[in-house]
Amino acid sequence: MLPPFGVLASCGACVMMSAVPTADQPRRLNAVLFEGFELLDVFGPLEVFGALRDRFDVHLVGPTAGAVRSAQGPSALADESYDDGRPADILVVPGGIGTRRLVGDRSFLDTLASWAVGTELVTSVCTGAAVLAAAGLLDGRRATSNKRSFAWVCEQGPHVQWVPEARWVEDGNRWTSSGVAAGIDMALAIVERLHGADLACQVADGIEFEWHDDPSWDPFAAKNGLVPKLQS
Amino acid sequence: MLPPFGVLASCGACVMMSAVPTADQPRRLNAVLFEGFELLDVFGPLEVFGALRDRFDVHLVGPTAGAVRSAQGPSALADESYDDGRPADILVVPGGIGTRRLVGDRSFLDTLASWAVGTELVTSVCTGAAVLAAAGLLDGRRATSNKRSFAWVCEQGPHVQWVPEARWVEDGNRWTSSGVAAGIDMALAIVERLHGADLACQVADGIEFEWHDDPSWDPFAAKNGLVPKLQS
Repeated sequence: MLPPFGVLASCGACVMMSAVPTADQPRRLNAVLFEGFELLDVFGPLEVFGALRDRFDVHLVGPTAGAVRSAQGPSALADESYDDGRPADILVVPGGIGTRRLVGDRSFLDTLASWAVGTELVTSVCTGAAVLAAAGLLDGRRATSNKRSFAWVCEQGPHVQWVPEARWVEDGNRWTSSGVAAGIDMALAIVERLHGADLACQVADGIEFEWHDDPSWDPFAAKNGLVPKLQS
Repeated sequence: MLPPFGVLASCGACVMMSAVPTADQPRRLNAVLFEGFELLDVFGPLEVFGALRDRFDVHLVGPTAGAVRSAQGPSALADESYDDGRPADILVVPGGIGTRRLVGDRSFLDTLASWAVGTELVTSVCTGAAVLAAAGLLDGRRATSNKRSFAWVCEQGPHVQWVPEARWVEDGNRWTSSGVAAGIDMALAIVERLHGADLACQVADGIEFEWHDDPSWDPFAAKNGLVPKLQS
């Protein structure tokens, strides 16, 4: 069970990173790598969660342990394989050109669906939502995704209530963010939910990131013709 | 030689990523990994440059070819070692806790200084500026860095004109950004400089990133007491 939202605080008030002790074990976070994953979809959120290593134990899982090549070229190192990865408290599924193949990979989708059982938070960034949808993990839920690939993503989940204008969408324990950089905003919102707004603001300030903490903020929906543009 | 600034364009006007052909060879970009590098310092800019693979040929170089562990835990894969890495057109030196050791590593600093000779753009993100400074690469130049570690960074470069309030600073072919997320803004500014504002806006919109394209935008200087806070 998730605690209720903490008191909203302005990031303007946060100056120094605190080192608040926690009595709990860190939550294990598995970010799912695959050939053609989008770099920032993974490492934006991992910058946020990785700033709180007493709260989050961050792992990369891949088809096999070892190098996995991103859509941008550079490779990251999976420390565990899909078969050997330990269950996560938080699952992060990134987007990237590799999702085009994954949505048709029944074996992978079944594995992903099995991981989601009992996982506290199942999250996606960008077109990672298409993968969650193809695995049936968003059926009957509200969700969002990358705005340039929105039509294709929607096709992967005909039983999903797709939200065209949102920085991120939370529905139960499913959190889906809009494209690429939106994953950083969503990760901070998850920190807020789990550990309070003050800590989320401190992380945002620590990484000198202007956090859009309003999930309805989304200028990219209008830019991509998904909602009408406001008249100026 | 760098071309002059293109015409400034509002990102609001950019909707679709263009596929403008280029007659030039892509510029080679080497991002310098070391034990304890900051994830987003590397992968924020590489998301930007990696979106334009016809313009930028992105590589990770490390102490040896292979895995290099970040400050946040996950490892990236250096495709070349310091000794074997080919010369770059653009050098990106990230920050991270590992810089604390690097500024005292004379052998590394000499290597870094040798790489900078003839390199078109020598850039740093966050406390990467401390490393450039310790290598003497910022002497007599204006530069900035992470705002929480600013005093320590300044100590590494007594002959540098440190700028406490800036998202990034450009001085000749040296570009230094403020902390962590600021590297994304600077990378977009470099794309603007090399290929025009339209393309930079298209990349920013493509990754759903609100680009702060004004190098003087820096709320984190005041938050960290480096400049007086404005009265509201």
